[in-house]
Amino acid sequence: MSNSTIENFGQERERLNQIVMKYSGSSIKRFYSLDSQVYGDGALPKKTKELLGLVASLVLRCDDCIKYHVVRCHQEGVTSDELDEALAIGLVVGGSITIPHLRRTLQAWDELKRAD
Amino acid sequence: MSNSTIENFGQERERLNQIVMKYSGSSIKRFYSLDSQVYGDGALPKKTKELLGLVASLVLRCDDCIKYHVVRCHQEGVTSDELDEALAIGLVVGGSITIPHLRRTLQAWDELKRAD
Amino acid sequence: MSNSTIENFGQERERLNQIVMKYSGSSIKRFYSLDSQVYGDGALPKKTKELLGLVASLVLRCDDCIKYHVVRCHQEGVTSDELDEALAIGLVVGGSITIPHLRRTLQAWDELKRAD
Amino acid sequence: MSNSTIENFGQERERLNQIVMKYSGSSIKRFYSLDSQVYGDGALPKKTKELLGLVASLVLRCDDCIKYHVVRCHQEGVTSDELDEALAIGLVVGGSITIPHLRRTLQAWDELKRAD
Amino acid sequence: MSNSTIENFGQERERLNQIVMKYSGSSIKRFYSLDSQVYGDGALPKKTKELLGLVASLVLRCDDCIKYHVVRCHQEGVTSDELDEALAIGLVVGGSITIPHLRRTLQAWDELKRAD
Amino acid sequence: MSNSTIENFGQERERLNQIVMKYSGSSIKRFYSLDSQVYGDGALPKKTKELLGLVASLVLRCDDCIKYHVVRCHQEGVTSDELDEALAIGLVVGGSITIPHLRRTLQAWDELKRAD
Repeated sequence: MSNSTIENFGQERERLNQIVMKYSGSSIKRFYSLDSQVYGDGALPKKTKELLGLVASLVLRCDDCIKYHVVRCHQEGVTSDELDEALAIGLVVGGSITIPHLRRTLQAWDELKRAD
Repeated sequence: MSNSTIENFGQERERLNQIVMKYSGSSIKRFYSLDSQVYGDGALPKKTKELLGLVASLVLRCDDCIKYHVVRCHQEGVTSDELDEALAIGLVVGGSITIPHLRRTLQAWDELKRAD
Repeated sequence: MSNSTIENFGQERERLNQIVMKYSGSSIKRFYSLDSQVYGDGALPKKTKELLGLVASLVLRCDDCIKYHVVRCHQEGVTSDELDEALAIGLVVGGSITIPHLRRTLQAWDELKRAD
Repeated sequence: MSNSTIENFGQERERLNQIVMKYSGSSIKRFYSLDSQVYGDGALPKKTKELLGLVASLVLRCDDCIKYHVVRCHQEGVTSDELDEALAIGLVVGGSITIPHLRRTLQAWDELKRAD
Repeated sequence: MSNSTIENFGQERERLNQIVMKYSGSSIKRFYSLDSQVYGDGALPKKTKELLGLVASLVLRCDDCIKYHVVRCHQEGVTSDELDEALAIGLVVGGSITIPHLRRTLQAWDELKRAD
Repeated sequence: MSNSTIENFGQERERLNQIVMKYSGSSIKRFYSLDSQVYGDGALPKKTKELLGLVASLVLRCDDCIKYHVVRCHQEGVTSDELDEALAIGLVVGGSITIPHLRRTLQAWDELKRAD
């Protein structure tokens, strides 16, 4: 993703989250808060947590979740070799049904690396 | 969704279902008939059944199914508070992997409410 | 389930939840709290919420979750006809792959009804 | 599975299906009827259909469904080589998460072959 | 799909696979090689294997995988009646949640048949 | 798990894998080999890879896979705090439907820690 693509992805995500907040009561709001909390630094570094989020998103095959965590992995300094090894685990665990998502994961990564 | 968006969604769905009918034998046709039957009035009111269909579609993460049941929930008089509580159950049961679908669910709901 | 089976199921669940609490930090504890909150009374009655939890558990095919919500549905006064109609939606949405779980759902229900 | 294990599996399945029939209205009954219909002879032979049912059950990871279709494959004269090739597709599509089910599939097959 | 649509689909797939190869180490490459191997001729003919891949893709609800196997089924001489019967099994096993994918499967098939 | 439980789990796994090898051709054998390869040391340490395997297994809800990776995490020196944070990510991503598996994960961990 070029910097402007990342920006657009982030802005659209933000716009839709505001609609979620408009209609959501305390339960959905609490879930969102918890969702932020689990990726913070702790006994495991943020980088490892983003890889965990990425592989979980790959095996569950959610493109939006994958794109979010790929950007975050890039921000946390994951290298291409580390990404490859994490994705290989996701591919072997989740099977060839994840391949279309793997393609889009590495397409996003390629755009991020080109913009480095 | 604006009224015209709902109309377009319905028309495209209808067009594709005609292709399904063109190629399907009795089994697929019987499935379609059964699929209509289970959402009819009975011991449970239609409104509850549409909420069941919506939450099942959310946890299984099918955008087309979600969109169909959101429109039907709106037609059956589901309120925004009822929708929020049903979606909160889907979100907690299905996890953050459902959030991109939750966003699109509430975006559709927002358009339906604006067109009220 | 006979009353003693329900009791045993509840006790084992409680025992394992204590092990979860022993090792869990604030995130898992917050999730547990949120998980209780979403089934409380609100715009939708508890009975409807338990049916939503049950159908979500059926289409996601989790026997422990099903058993928990079947007991709760029984406590909230769900009738056999209401249960049948909710399960029919789960079966049609989730397909024949849910049938082994449907069997166990109705086996549990049958035991609950015999103990009424 | 020895002949007596197959018999027990079939009898327990039958016993639970009777409980399903006791509580089910016309929708669940119609689903059961449709579920039988799709595996009958037609443009595709029964053997191919049972292999389709088996691989679908493997990638969706349902042990009871797998066991049922393994027995049916055996009855329809599937060979060990054919089974291996069908399971290899399921394993590659579904990934290593299917391996525990693959083990139980071939354990059942081994028992069926020993009883031949 | 018209011949040009099939060509475009194949070209885009090829382009993305080259990005995958650019970043992938030996594990992902070995997976790709294995993924090709399992659909080759053997005890089961290629046609049956493509039907297995198609039904597995339908119940796991992956549109790209479905499109790939529909084209391959067409190349292997699958008839419309054979396709209908295979899809009926996928629909019954996987439930109504597969219907949007079933629609797209038969839309692709319709385009392939019109171009015959 | 006590040391003898771990041993039994490993022995049963080994026994069933021998049945798999008895019937499997080169594709399944190649998959097994690839499955071992991806968890080896590389750009990411084995410990991180086992955590990735564990969280993928939790969100896909496979008890046997979970048990295997919990034992491997313990062998690689994962701490209870690290495990808690990884599981919290799995729970939030995968939702309450993973809770029964989370319970069994921490029951196994508790037995491993008691045997330390």
